[in-house]
Amino acid sequence: MQAFDREEYLARIENTKLRMMQFGLDVLLVCDPANMNYLTGYDGWSFYTPQAVVVALAQDEPICIVRGIDRNGARVTTFLDDANIIGYPDDYVQNKRKHPMDYVAEMLESRGLGRGAIGLEMDAYYFTAAGAEALHQSLPNATFKNAYTLVNWIRMIKSPRELDYMRQAARILETAMGVAIDAVRPGVRQCDAVAKIMAAQASGTAEYGGDYASIVPLLPTGIGTSTPHLTWSDQPFATGEATILELAGCRRRYHCPQTRTVFLGKPPQKLVDAGKVVVEGIETVLATMRPGFTCEEVEQIWRKVIARAGIVQESRCGYSVGLNYPPDWGEHTISLRPGDKTVLQPDMTIHFMPGIWQDDWGVGISECIHLTETGAVALADTPRRLIVKD
Amino acid sequence: MQAFDREEYLARIENTKLRMMQFGLDVLLVCDPANMNYLTGYDGWSFYTPQAVVVALAQDEPICIVRGIDRNGARVTTFLDDANIIGYPDDYVQNKRKHPMDYVAEMLESRGLGRGAIGLEMDAYYFTAAGAEALHQSLPNATFKNAYTLVNWIRMIKSPRELDYMRQAARILETAMGVAIDAVRPGVRQCDAVAKIMAAQASGTAEYGGDYASIVPLLPTGIGTSTPHLTWSDQPFATGEATILELAGCRRRYHCPQTRTVFLGKPPQKLVDAGKVVVEGIETVLATMRPGFTCEEVEQIWRKVIARAGIVQESRCGYSVGLNYPPDWGEHTISLRPGDKTVLQPDMTIHFMPGIWQDDWGVGISECIHLTETGAVALADTPRRLIVKD
Repeated sequence: MQAFDREEYLARIENTKLRMMQFGLDVLLVCDPANMNYLTGYDGWSFYTPQAVVVALAQDEPICIVRGIDRNGARVTTFLDDANIIGYPDDYVQNKRKHPMDYVAEMLESRGLGRGAIGLEMDAYYFTAAGAEALHQSLPNATFKNAYTLVNWIRMIKSPRELDYMRQAARILETAMGVAIDAVRPGVRQCDAVAKIMAAQASGTAEYGGDYASIVPLLPTGIGTSTPHLTWSDQPFATGEATILELAGCRRRYHCPQTRTVFLGKPPQKLVDAGKVVVEGIETVLATMRPGFTCEEVEQIWRKVIARAGIVQESRCGYSVGLNYPPDWGEHTISLRPGDKTVLQPDMTIHFMPGIWQDDWGVGISECIHLTETGAVALADTPRRLIVKD
Repeated sequence: MQAFDREEYLARIENTKLRMMQFGLDVLLVCDPANMNYLTGYDGWSFYTPQAVVVALAQDEPICIVRGIDRNGARVTTFLDDANIIGYPDDYVQNKRKHPMDYVAEMLESRGLGRGAIGLEMDAYYFTAAGAEALHQSLPNATFKNAYTLVNWIRMIKSPRELDYMRQAARILETAMGVAIDAVRPGVRQCDAVAKIMAAQASGTAEYGGDYASIVPLLPTGIGTSTPHLTWSDQPFATGEATILELAGCRRRYHCPQTRTVFLGKPPQKLVDAGKVVVEGIETVLATMRPGFTCEEVEQIWRKVIARAGIVQESRCGYSVGLNYPPDWGEHTISLRPGDKTVLQPDMTIHFMPGIWQDDWGVGISECIHLTETGAVALADTPRRLIVKD
């Protein structure tokens, strides 16, 4: 049932403890659901109530603290000893008078972990300002440090088994993107195209069932292509308009995202030109990028290609991707942009997403890239061009 | 394109300002995506980066601050004047050296809103501990108050147009639940059942296209029914096992959720009995509940029914529901449980969700209820019983 051998989880926990020691932490409170999953296997749509995995240098095994009714979910999905799975009483849920982090604090105290240096994921989704405040008030003998992305940076380098899941996600993505490109037709309601896409994402392949992607299919169309994050309506696709499809295949919570742009009818020349430039940019990056480059160097390669076409785009053109939960498949570590001097390493996986969003139009073509020992490989195999359905 | 008339948004803003005055606030920073949508219409899958709607007593119109590339999304989806839609530079995104809330603080200062009492949604999703810290540091002349759920409590009473959307969502749910019940068959992979459910949720009806639900279809099966929040795998459904289907129809971000339990084969007597008790509990509550009751009184009605069958269930048996974004369709205001003395009012919509989760089995049957002037009506019409497929 678990996605990885116990040994792989234990190695991740060891790596986390090593970083905790370097960072001067006794205890790390992991609230990012992707990090919770990474360290223990915990999986479930329960992150809408506060929960945490506690890693302590003084304890071999992490402790998983979830809402009481989710305790059996932790039993089913983690490798943890039953004594290390703790459920909090239900009246802590969405109650103005007490906070689940009060309970977490009590539990830490009861295990002798309530003093010393405690790391908090200060900018993680689902770790709220009120949660941090509750901990500060309940644990007066602790000192707190911001350990946001401590585990994320470990997640960035993928193991062979993780790469297997990424490749399985790529197979699912290829199917779903094929369905998506086919579904965008004049007169078809956007919601009906999404129905087919989501069905393909969930069914996956005969061999690999699909998981839910951390972001729903995005398909801004018409004027909507000037911005990347619009979702669908029940309006039909129209001839003379572009649609930017951004979606992922997901397998055991590992994502392979991709973007393609479909034009219905005869596209304006500027779109054709921009499509060519974006493809040239991707292919130049794929041919050049390898371990040893910094993130900003890769962005520079891309920027030079589009500059020749007179296009300036301020936003980052890529980020690390892999294991995740809604609302994001990105890992919040590296970004391909000026100023990011992180050196790329083998077995990173990056969504190279060089979108162009202008005043009233846009184009997006992207690839999920695996950095090998010697170069860069696109994980999914979908025709890489502006798709024109005339 | 907007889901409501401008007048309805303006009335919501007025209500918000009234509560702000009662609460002693000059400015309210709204980061909950549902509240942002409620006040301005803003809609998009951009809540994975920090964003805010600023309501100030000194300003007629709210200000919407989003990531630069999402600015056009705000132009397309809100009624706001262009001057009140502000995009922050892209290098604020996931950057250890600065935080988007630093930018929000600058913008508040530049408009003279950086002093006085500022309300923060301290426990809202997507308003992180680091975001609160950035604001505290950047606005030394402000005082901060926790205004979590200030807007949520306004959202709790639904307008006629909102009830229309809830009813449309109910039509979508009826279709999707029908598909779901049909799809659970021995040998069918869970992921293939989900494919059909998600397709039905997105397509909706010929009249009403579906939106994405804030929670993916939950369908714990077998031992998984002992806990409510497991998602699917690619394992097949098996004869002799129960599956608890919890899913929603969603229309313009308004949800109608429902739960049904399907058993494949001949169910054990305890499950048959528990199913009957849950249905009796729901029907007793539907026949009794009306405006004027408190939340805890409703829970007591339910508890008495199951107590007669010897069942004790600690978790709350319902909560307010409506407009929302992942990860939750609940509104984080009222809960049907001991201690909640909120008096029920007409045009509240409540997910009455009396799940029973025991050591190694469970049953869930639920309804989304509209509180009318005189009573309670289930919004969706799906056969209300343990569904046995023998």
